Amino acid sequence: MPNAHFLRAPHVATADAPVRRDHGGDLDAAMAHFGGAAQDWIDLSTGINACPYPVPPVPEAAWTRLPTRADMARLAAAAAAAYGTTAPLVPLAGAQAAIQLVPLLDSPGEAAVLAPTYNEHRAALEARGWRVREATHVRDLAGADLAVVVNPNNPDGRLHAPADLLALGEKVGRLVVDESFMDMTPEASLAAYAARRGLIVLRSFGKFYGIAGLRLGFALGSGPDIDRLADLAGPWPVSGAAIAIGCRALEDRVWARETATRLKAEALRLDRLATSAGWRCAGGTDLFRLYEVPDAVAARAHLARAAIWVRIFPWSRTLVRLGLPGRAAHWARLAAALERRAE
Amino acid sequence: MPNAHFLRAPHVATADAPVRRDHGGDLDAAMAHFGGAAQDWIDLSTGINACPYPVPPVPEAAWTRLPTRADMARLAAAAAAAYGTTAPLVPLAGAQAAIQLVPLLDSPGEAAVLAPTYNEHRAALEARGWRVREATHVRDLAGADLAVVVNPNNPDGRLHAPADLLALGEKVGRLVVDESFMDMTPEASLAAYAARRGLIVLRSFGKFYGIAGLRLGFALGSGPDIDRLADLAGPWPVSGAAIAIGCRALEDRVWARETATRLKAEALRLDRLATSAGWRCAGGTDLFRLYEVPDAVAARAHLARAAIWVRIFPWSRTLVRLGLPGRAAHWARLAAALERRAE
Repeated sequence: MPNAHFLRAPHVATADAPVRRDHGGDLDAAMAHFGGAAQDWIDLSTGINACPYPVPPVPEAAWTRLPTRADMARLAAAAAAAYGTTAPLVPLAGAQAAIQLVPLLDSPGEAAVLAPTYNEHRAALEARGWRVREATHVRDLAGADLAVVVNPNNPDGRLHAPADLLALGEKVGRLVVDESFMDMTPEASLAAYAARRGLIVLRSFGKFYGIAGLRLGFALGSGPDIDRLADLAGPWPVSGAAIAIGCRALEDRVWARETATRLKAEALRLDRLATSAGWRCAGGTDLFRLYEVPDAVAARAHLARAAIWVRIFPWSRTLVRLGLPGRAAHWARLAAALERRAE
Repeated sequence: MPNAHFLRAPHVATADAPVRRDHGGDLDAAMAHFGGAAQDWIDLSTGINACPYPVPPVPEAAWTRLPTRADMARLAAAAAAAYGTTAPLVPLAGAQAAIQLVPLLDSPGEAAVLAPTYNEHRAALEARGWRVREATHVRDLAGADLAVVVNPNNPDGRLHAPADLLALGEKVGRLVVDESFMDMTPEASLAAYAARRGLIVLRSFGKFYGIAGLRLGFALGSGPDIDRLADLAGPWPVSGAAIAIGCRALEDRVWARETATRLKAEALRLDRLATSAGWRCAGGTDLFRLYEVPDAVAARAHLARAAIWVRIFPWSRTLVRLGLPGRAAHWARLAAALERRAE
């Protein structure tokens, strides 16, 4: 196997390779433990919309040419309109790409992350020399050189009011607000305030639009910070397909409104199924739901035997996170599996 | 204009924004100066193959899902086979993405770049705190903490023998060999040696395959270096489309051989046209040719009036670089424009 090292190293922990953070969306693990082929599984281990924006045909030039300045500006304008902001912003290869770059904006110091949350923030900060402490209340983030709040939070859906975060911004060197799951609650977004000095707002494209493989997200902030992030990302940070598809989807505000409405109803539907099975609602957003169960590992294994893959967390024995099923057949399979659980 | 700042800042130099390096491939500049719409222009300002690999249909899951470990491993295996190496490698969003990350591997020190060459190496190193000196001979790179050789070089096509570069590798802290234009001369590649300590080899996918908008490239190196680059890039550094299309294209060795043969013949054809117009061949690769002309600005303007966009360089008044035309009609338009030049 010519790339044996790659197979093992960048994604699997070994004695001499860095430990990779656990994530949803990796069916390889499900198949390795429980068998089956990818097409047999219902993947509810992510918060990615299972009813994606219809992917339009990609123009040939988007494949063959390097994106131009005009292409990038068009995408930036579409994102600014969709997110309701006049703040400077830069397109990046997913909110994840922004998470990789933000720790490079300042000299490393003390960072504070509102936890538990998406584990890549802490990892990216530590990899670049930051000391990271975790806090469970917003007030305990005060004083940090850099503070991270995922809003709404993943996985518990905790939502912070803009005023509270803006007040926090005055008490930290830099405030990073990761709004990867904000599309369903735009009234709580800080996008409109992102030009304030020291504030960075991250947006994900792939989750709400259900096109996570495209790798598209945005960082919003002050002019100097966005210039610096654009410089760190280099020219052509996103693909021609991301520009073509991203523009089309972000400009379609009707789809966004209808999708937010649909997701809200379906999140309630999932809660009803889960509570009928004896699970307790523990939060979430309209793209994923968090439940408290007697034994998270057992609950995941139960659903996995029905080829349904859900997310559990290394820091909790009782929490299970489920994305929303898409097709009717997937809802039916999940309902049946949860019913068997309740019996 | 909501994103007025973006429009101006990340790509256009202003008093308070960083100066962006000049690049080929940006027809916006051509249109701003000479008019016309994008479809009117023949863009020969890049070294991107104008007869691209036929883009296969992208499977739906490549759009909607996050790439899995198995997807990434499949792409890595295809690249390793195509590049003839067993060295560890990591897929990235273009060779450019690797150029952005390589300066982060070590603490900044003194870097030496074999020049003149692709200007992003120096820029990325300086942006991350390296002192950069330029050298015109390989021997003058010795002693640097980090040395960069673009092989074959852009724009003059200078090709260094593997033995010479391996010897240089013993005399520098780290040797970065950018093989973005190596697909036509695989016998000169260091890919097979890339696992040697301190060596990093960069490969571009988009140029030879003519799919530059896809954003795909590879970094090859020792296990610890590739682990670190993968960590700096974060999970999901390339899109699902890049994995699907990249695997298919890299596995098609027949297309690669036939394309290398075609490009070789067409590079000679371009040289004949140019020398007939009184231009002197000054090097290049089989994806672009470099010519010495009496006045580079005038030569570019002459071709621009025929809606043909070529590359000139801020550091030379006499050099013009042309990519190879694709379609027969484009060859004919270029021939006619060069003939008028000769008259």
